[in-house]
Amino acid sequence: MKRKKIAVVGVGLIGGSMAIQLHEKKLSSGLIGVDASAAHAQQALEMELVDEVLPLEQAIAASEVVILAVPVDQLVQQLPAILDLVKDQIVIDLGSTKSQLVEAVKDHPRRGRYVATHPMWGTEYSGPAAAMRGAFEKKAVIICNASDSDADALEWTRAMFEKIGMRILEMGAAAHDLHAAYVSHISHITSFALANTVLQKEKEDNAIFELASAGFESTVRLAKSNPAMWVPIFLQNKENVLDVLKEHIAQLQRFKESIEKDDDRYLLKLIEDANKIRRIIK
Amino acid sequence: MKRKKIAVVGVGLIGGSMAIQLHEKKLSSGLIGVDASAAHAQQALEMELVDEVLPLEQAIAASEVVILAVPVDQLVQQLPAILDLVKDQIVIDLGSTKSQLVEAVKDHPRRGRYVATHPMWGTEYSGPAAAMRGAFEKKAVIICNASDSDADALEWTRAMFEKIGMRILEMGAAAHDLHAAYVSHISHITSFALANTVLQKEKEDNAIFELASAGFESTVRLAKSNPAMWVPIFLQNKENVLDVLKEHIAQLQRFKESIEKDDDRYLLKLIEDANKIRRIIK
Repeated sequence: MKRKKIAVVGVGLIGGSMAIQLHEKKLSSGLIGVDASAAHAQQALEMELVDEVLPLEQAIAASEVVILAVPVDQLVQQLPAILDLVKDQIVIDLGSTKSQLVEAVKDHPRRGRYVATHPMWGTEYSGPAAAMRGAFEKKAVIICNASDSDADALEWTRAMFEKIGMRILEMGAAAHDLHAAYVSHISHITSFALANTVLQKEKEDNAIFELASAGFESTVRLAKSNPAMWVPIFLQNKENVLDVLKEHIAQLQRFKESIEKDDDRYLLKLIEDANKIRRIIK
Repeated sequence: MKRKKIAVVGVGLIGGSMAIQLHEKKLSSGLIGVDASAAHAQQALEMELVDEVLPLEQAIAASEVVILAVPVDQLVQQLPAILDLVKDQIVIDLGSTKSQLVEAVKDHPRRGRYVATHPMWGTEYSGPAAAMRGAFEKKAVIICNASDSDADALEWTRAMFEKIGMRILEMGAAAHDLHAAYVSHISHITSFALANTVLQKEKEDNAIFELASAGFESTVRLAKSNPAMWVPIFLQNKENVLDVLKEHIAQLQRFKESIEKDDDRYLLKLIEDANKIRRIIK
């Protein structure tokens, strides 16, 4: 596989971790970083996540592949303008929502150069310092609306994810957004809300956290996640997120009612039902 | 510290893990297992978690220390009868709720022999096969209503937890149950309800879990926890659990409303508030 000159737009957790993989898996002949934050761009350069830093336009002109790893609100704004600047470059985004994004460029004359993807990996940290070696490996990546991408762009993108060690799935953007609401977005809302529940209590009683156990840490760790990333995800995937959130609140109400009524048999059934997650999560 | 002959009543996740520590930290001169399940008792013997298995009465008669690691509904039923059988043995329970238990024996003539404790450790697995080496180490353990225990019983119990490597806190049973609702019980309800939310959806769409990411696994892993342990915890700690659960549902409603109204500023504030959990969870 011939190495390509690659621009990474957004050198934070996702873009920085991808830059490490592009280098280590010998996919890039050179990495150009782009970031709206001069401090982050400088940090990415010092950490050697990228070889050089350039403004967006120059980075696109100097690259064969452009990888976008910015929050999804910025993606929707920037992608049409980026495609305006593209000749035969391949443009790949790594965003967590897909419907609004593919809609925003569906009639663009360069639509074929663009491949819509969502690698299912992340951590609760952000910025270049959060970039990790070995990220994305053995995780799933979803490619959306693949038939709207040029064959060469799609082929290179698939080869890139395979070389990183990802499992590739294809689906439409609408199906992606529905699934992402269930297996990613709701977990974050739950965790944010749980943190707020407990922090609310802590105002009265600051000894409470001396007792925090591993179980608590596990359910609340996503609450450290970056608001600049998650606010636009929830708003762009509004309908799906609200559907899942309403169902989740209804499920919590069932626990509430069974406890209020001392209904140990129903409570047992609710927990036995939940245990079926063992089939899926080893 | 002189080794003692110790009976462990309930040789599952908690009792089995404690048995390993009692042996490895040279606290026991011999370990007697007791379990309502003959299969579990046999398994504990085969795994060498305990040296012998005896019926409860004989185990108490043959021991200097009796450690109770059974579900909290059984604790409340059995503890008075166990104290009836005790001469100068020390009886320690490891249960997750404390108020009903200390209430059940508060006027018992042998109350002083009993020490009420809650080591803040567990996993989502259960039974003797789930017993782990190194469990409890560096975690907190709460001793409740310590002044109701005889000085020698309390002193030995504290020394035992210290030798295992635990941080000891003392508080009243009511304060314990309130705190446990916030830092442990609500996390389990959240996780059970999240599993049910997503499993409900899976009925329509069994491809959904191909996408499950590490974040999802983290928030949902407690949903594998044992119903026989958790149903009585929620019911015994009913008032506190309901208070926290209502607050948690209210926090989720705030997310729901801010998304419904596209209120990005309020959503940002909710997430920034949640991020303050960073102070507590590294």
